Amino acid sequence: MIKTGDFAKVITKDQELSGIIMPNSNNKTLFLKLENGYNIGIDRKKIKKINVLNMEKKPMEKEKVEIKSKKNLPVISLLHTGGTISSRIDYSTGAVMPAITPKELIEMFPELQEIANIKSRLLSNIASEDLRFDDYKVIAKEIEKEIKSGVDGIIIGHGTDTMHYTSAALSFILEDLPIPVILVGAQRSSDRGSSDAFLNLLSATIFITKTDFSGIAICMHENLNDKNCLILPGLKTRKMHTSRRDAFKAINDDAIALVNPENKKVDFFKHYNKKDKSKKLKIYPDMEERVAIIRTHTNMSEKQFEFYKDYKGLIIEGTGLGHIPGGKNNQKIVEVVKKLAKKIPVVMTSQCVFGRVNMNVYSPQKILLDSGVIPGNDMTSETAFIKLAWLLKNRKKEVKELMTENLKGEINQRLKERHYLEDEF
Amino acid sequence: MIKTGDFAKVITKDQELSGIIMPNSNNKTLFLKLENGYNIGIDRKKIKKINVLNMEKKPMEKEKVEIKSKKNLPVISLLHTGGTISSRIDYSTGAVMPAITPKELIEMFPELQEIANIKSRLLSNIASEDLRFDDYKVIAKEIEKEIKSGVDGIIIGHGTDTMHYTSAALSFILEDLPIPVILVGAQRSSDRGSSDAFLNLLSATIFITKTDFSGIAICMHENLNDKNCLILPGLKTRKMHTSRRDAFKAINDDAIALVNPENKKVDFFKHYNKKDKSKKLKIYPDMEERVAIIRTHTNMSEKQFEFYKDYKGLIIEGTGLGHIPGGKNNQKIVEVVKKLAKKIPVVMTSQCVFGRVNMNVYSPQKILLDSGVIPGNDMTSETAFIKLAWLLKNRKKEVKELMTENLKGEINQRLKERHYLEDEF
Repeated sequence: MIKTGDFAKVITKDQELSGIIMPNSNNKTLFLKLENGYNIGIDRKKIKKINVLNMEKKPMEKEKVEIKSKKNLPVISLLHTGGTISSRIDYSTGAVMPAITPKELIEMFPELQEIANIKSRLLSNIASEDLRFDDYKVIAKEIEKEIKSGVDGIIIGHGTDTMHYTSAALSFILEDLPIPVILVGAQRSSDRGSSDAFLNLLSATIFITKTDFSGIAICMHENLNDKNCLILPGLKTRKMHTSRRDAFKAINDDAIALVNPENKKVDFFKHYNKKDKSKKLKIYPDMEERVAIIRTHTNMSEKQFEFYKDYKGLIIEGTGLGHIPGGKNNQKIVEVVKKLAKKIPVVMTSQCVFGRVNMNVYSPQKILLDSGVIPGNDMTSETAFIKLAWLLKNRKKEVKELMTENLKGEINQRLKERHYLEDEF
Repeated sequence: MIKTGDFAKVITKDQELSGIIMPNSNNKTLFLKLENGYNIGIDRKKIKKINVLNMEKKPMEKEKVEIKSKKNLPVISLLHTGGTISSRIDYSTGAVMPAITPKELIEMFPELQEIANIKSRLLSNIASEDLRFDDYKVIAKEIEKEIKSGVDGIIIGHGTDTMHYTSAALSFILEDLPIPVILVGAQRSSDRGSSDAFLNLLSATIFITKTDFSGIAICMHENLNDKNCLILPGLKTRKMHTSRRDAFKAINDDAIALVNPENKKVDFFKHYNKKDKSKKLKIYPDMEERVAIIRTHTNMSEKQFEFYKDYKGLIIEGTGLGHIPGGKNNQKIVEVVKKLAKKIPVVMTSQCVFGRVNMNVYSPQKILLDSGVIPGNDMTSETAFIKLAWLLKNRKKEVKELMTENLKGEINQRLKERHYLEDEF
């Protein structure tokens, strides 16, 4: 009898594969967790034979490491929220398990302890796509707690799917941040050969200990060489690939710095706020719940927009320079959006991802501008969404003005100065 | 008295600017069309003085060119649908005007006539964001008409915002295409110094006349050098910048070819279908109207999904590997999506843009798969949307199977063979 968790050799007409039988196997497909950590789905019809092998004891019980606090090293607080970064595969079930205690962490990455005293703590174990605004609030309050305890920097272990939403939220919620808060994710879980977890964690730790940077940033792989990591701006970064380790890219902006963990060198690409432990952190964690993003496409119905009439704010991710279906074919949509924009703040961003919204070029968009639609400038849809939800609760009377102003680095000022020129960058 | 269309010098405390006063000027902002073709908005408060100048006669009436058909040259039909490519600025009003007749076209680009006999015709004058499925039908039928008339290739002048939606639609609608159909757009109108219209049109013309390629493709700038153009696959391309001339990028695929107009050289990057004028074109222009794309974000309400319950098909543009809010925080969303997926085809794509959906890695997504959610593989959301709308009208009984099969180049087969491995490319 073959069951979930068995270590088995599966023979098909094309190949022989060994691995753990995973719980998501079904009548059609057998899923195996291969020894390199990859999952593979095998069509049951193609399987000739399955041999259950003796389970080799996987090194779950690594050599115990004593965690000693070293007085001369800076203190970093590592807060886990969930996601691949804080997980490892449980080889007896194939399921992903969180790695949470400081002891387990040091067991996995003993090198970290040589450059900093790492305090590790689990805040939650939530896949990042499942996070809600309330979770940002929890993270912000835990950051406040850690800062009050006097740590030199904070690393947030985070799922990658919405890491850029969280970094944007923390950028608005936390004011006068005295120390660096670096979000770190992983595209492959820690116990896989190709895992990026360690390089990302190590680079964030080096960045915090070797520089005087303060602020919210994301630390992920620069490219596929597994050599350097980039420190990316919390408000101008986006996940741009489903699986690559260098999935995170700065959008309409430069990275903040490059970290080379081998020689512990950090190169800055731009100016940054300096660490200042005398600064007094303020937190503004409330965000308006009834805000949404609607992405336009061809052949839309005005009802898709009308749905949002009872919302408090809306991001329209239009096409090109910030367009919606709006000519003679789509007059109903224009009417609905005009009505919406008179009632609630409606902000235009672009599904091109890169570049800047410019609603002055073509006349149908000019009509929207006149109706009060707010151009999102060069903000990503994600950042515009988070900013709008935050402004609605914290600067309610100035939402329209502030959406087009650069508050925390979310709008690239240098390019804004060129007015309505179509810039190329 | 200063009025729209006046050629004026505007003096502010910072600068002096000359240009045409545009009709979208208002009490707050004066819009000028500068001589280089750019529009600029000037804060009325900053204006010290406006001098109306004598309007220099702009060269609207260019030297007339006789259009002579040369027997030894191939015939290309250039069908205009609208957009920047087929427009020029009317300097008396600042508005964008279509340039439509063959005569006007040759006046603008006389060089084209040296390599092909160009027949030019206006199908419509619609900004591409305003196109609906019915317009794809019109374009397809006009293509059919041109092919029956015996032309050697077709160029579609198209607005850039949704050019990749149209190229995807034509790829499904047209079967056994005997000749090349190349979509060409421009990011800057033809009479601007920085216009990309000519190089794109010329490159498409060279590509059609110098190669034996057949199929649907997009021809746009390779980079900002204004030297070469790429021929991009109609089903795997996306507009990735609001304003750059090289905004169009192949997604999860290579470009088909590079065209160097200077030496009239074409380099192919991959295999392609060959021109065969004996092939008999078939067209299947119907598409299901009630299909939509919903983009996920954090803090969603299940009602945003519920809205689509009476649709015939839905694309969910999820996060990462194809995730929706689906853990304990978002159980209501999971329930609604499960219900939807039992009723209509629901296809998952990724807002990462690059990479491949893989719903087997994390268990909440596995639940969606089991409920019938169809993984969109490495298709862009736009291509998946068009494909779903097309299948629902033309292959209704096989929608689910065919969504995951490569019919016309919309799924990158080579990578599909790697099963569920998280590929890196």
